[in-house]
Amino acid sequence: MSTFEMMQTLHQPAKTKIVHLVMDGLGGLPRDPGGKTELETAHTPNLDALAARSQLGLASPVGPGITPGSGPAHLALFGYDPYRFDIGRGLLEALGIGFEQLPQDVAARGNFCTVDENNCITDRRAGRIPTEVNERLVATLRDISLPGVQVFVETVKEYRFVLVLRPTAGQTLHVNIADTDPQKTGVPPLMAVAQDAASEPTAELINHWLTEARDRLRPHPPANSLNLRGLAKDPGLPHMADVTGLRAAAIAVYPMYKGVARLIGMDVLPVVGETVEDEVEVLRSRWSDYDYFYFHVKKTDSAGEDGDFHRKASIIEHVDEAVVPAILALDPDVLIVTGDHSTPAVLKTHSWHPVPTLFWSRYGRPDGIAEFGERACGRGSLGTFPATDEMALAMGHALRLAKYGA
Amino acid sequence: MSTFEMMQTLHQPAKTKIVHLVMDGLGGLPRDPGGKTELETAHTPNLDALAARSQLGLASPVGPGITPGSGPAHLALFGYDPYRFDIGRGLLEALGIGFEQLPQDVAARGNFCTVDENNCITDRRAGRIPTEVNERLVATLRDISLPGVQVFVETVKEYRFVLVLRPTAGQTLHVNIADTDPQKTGVPPLMAVAQDAASEPTAELINHWLTEARDRLRPHPPANSLNLRGLAKDPGLPHMADVTGLRAAAIAVYPMYKGVARLIGMDVLPVVGETVEDEVEVLRSRWSDYDYFYFHVKKTDSAGEDGDFHRKASIIEHVDEAVVPAILALDPDVLIVTGDHSTPAVLKTHSWHPVPTLFWSRYGRPDGIAEFGERACGRGSLGTFPATDEMALAMGHALRLAKYGA
Repeated sequence: MSTFEMMQTLHQPAKTKIVHLVMDGLGGLPRDPGGKTELETAHTPNLDALAARSQLGLASPVGPGITPGSGPAHLALFGYDPYRFDIGRGLLEALGIGFEQLPQDVAARGNFCTVDENNCITDRRAGRIPTEVNERLVATLRDISLPGVQVFVETVKEYRFVLVLRPTAGQTLHVNIADTDPQKTGVPPLMAVAQDAASEPTAELINHWLTEARDRLRPHPPANSLNLRGLAKDPGLPHMADVTGLRAAAIAVYPMYKGVARLIGMDVLPVVGETVEDEVEVLRSRWSDYDYFYFHVKKTDSAGEDGDFHRKASIIEHVDEAVVPAILALDPDVLIVTGDHSTPAVLKTHSWHPVPTLFWSRYGRPDGIAEFGERACGRGSLGTFPATDEMALAMGHALRLAKYGA
Repeated sequence: MSTFEMMQTLHQPAKTKIVHLVMDGLGGLPRDPGGKTELETAHTPNLDALAARSQLGLASPVGPGITPGSGPAHLALFGYDPYRFDIGRGLLEALGIGFEQLPQDVAARGNFCTVDENNCITDRRAGRIPTEVNERLVATLRDISLPGVQVFVETVKEYRFVLVLRPTAGQTLHVNIADTDPQKTGVPPLMAVAQDAASEPTAELINHWLTEARDRLRPHPPANSLNLRGLAKDPGLPHMADVTGLRAAAIAVYPMYKGVARLIGMDVLPVVGETVEDEVEVLRSRWSDYDYFYFHVKKTDSAGEDGDFHRKASIIEHVDEAVVPAILALDPDVLIVTGDHSTPAVLKTHSWHPVPTLFWSRYGRPDGIAEFGERACGRGSLGTFPATDEMALAMGHALRLAKYGA
């Protein structure tokens, strides 16, 4: 029995409100030895004042030293063990472009690649063709038809696309199917190979499509072939309402985050516009309708990925000014400020570093550390803790968990 | 392999002594934002001086955000995973009144309730009748006899009682039986329903008793019916001597704590009187007979449950003065000062907050924090740690665990 199961057994109704403010890729690193991180550099008077009244800690998204993708990192924040609950790469890619996948659909991430005259791969990413070229190629693949399924092909960006098969005859498609990408050059792209008998009909459909698609691409180097990876269906995750009893809403503007929230049954609230002010407006207007709000800020991560230390710091400053006081004005019972993972500008990518986390609650025991930053959080009483704990902690502090045992 | 199994494999004899001083419900909360907790308010020069020579931390009884009952919380302190080892509510209730349950007995927690003329429940707690009324009603139920079992009915308090069936014919009673309490008003009390075939004979006995008992109560509103919950037998927990090799003794004055200690095979030492001084006297007089002493102080929890912040603080002060120096004078090798869970006076009930813990050992690495309080412990080197770790840590520091591997 884990905390996750315990929540399902013990959750009880209450009138309390929980806000989970997630600055994507929040955690950072100093540019120079002895220097400050992006968060430490940012001038954040509101977060610092809140920190003084909160508990601090460093949230570990999946495990020590492990760099999470956005899917696992978010599942952890929502209390779902990302090693136990797996969102296939194909499905994540489809969620990322806002494709409304149905539970019976099979999705694959596609990569255009370059092959030579012997059909051996010379570039697994087709020279990172421009997205416009991708769109033209995808258009030429859309009318490949397969028996018993509807076929969707959608551009992601550069060399990446999504393939989705939707059964039209009520049949179940099984997808225990290996990637066709041999993960190296000098060898031909593979065909789809079913890993069990039940998946053979799906593999046959995929291979029919692969043959036709690769034929059509042949005259279009550098994108003259393709591969499929991470074939996946909706894993049927337990819904947050069942796990926690919370009426949960997601406020996010990027498709992938909305998609992950939808997978666990959150209501995804429409946001008019893309700014954090637009998101705050939604929070304010729907405040009375939900118990739990996942509030996602994307641009911290984008700045980190771009290696733009100062832009990341200034986005944090903007959240401090435009979001934090607005949330506090709504008088929540629990407010967690954190990230899904670290994206240090010096690394220009997601990293394994645990994520600075501020946990404020009406019934908290403040650490009395008046600063929100990586090192301040390292001194906090939450210590370095599993991100999966956040939801149960929030539930406890929101008086939403009954006593365990007599 | 868990630490619990490891202890069983690695324990080795030694002459060292461990004292586990448990102030029930020790953890607290400030009354006002920025204020001090009960423990932080208490003047505790002895504990503060000991803290300076100890490691500090916050013990998590069962899991993040989870509020434990006394049974699971104590199992955790003794090293038993409370999610894995379950003490049924009926058994705990019997332990709580000092009923000497035998391993073959079946115990249930009983609640008197009020039903209307259609036998529908109008009050699940029978208006919280006075304990004296409970005693009179229990007396009228005592002579209901059942074939093949001896029947005990015992008052707990107000609307609560205990029913115990003891087989007299050597038969085994199985108790996978649902509660008869429908957990709501407006519907009739239920009969006992076996959840498996083996439990059907027991359910039949219980239903025989229920029918007769409810008939007899009919003329006695508001307690004119009853329900049974948490039907349970002794779960046959591994004994502490087998897990740790320790000769373990419990010094406690309240029945439930003595009962839980007895379930894991501790010797429960008789205490003449009810004060902590009486308990210290027992510790002193039996010091040479045991390796491990569980020393329980109940009144911190009672004060917390009463919402009496100052009484809780003054009980802690009294323990600091009357217990801590007396234990140190006996020259233990390991002394842990902690609680089983938090009972903040502001919440008037058990809570999910981790418990301030001081770990002193001859071979410790002191944190050098000269204060015993929630925030001081939040800065300690033990961090927030599972309470189940305390026993293995104590065993290690007491030189009672052999090396693992070569």
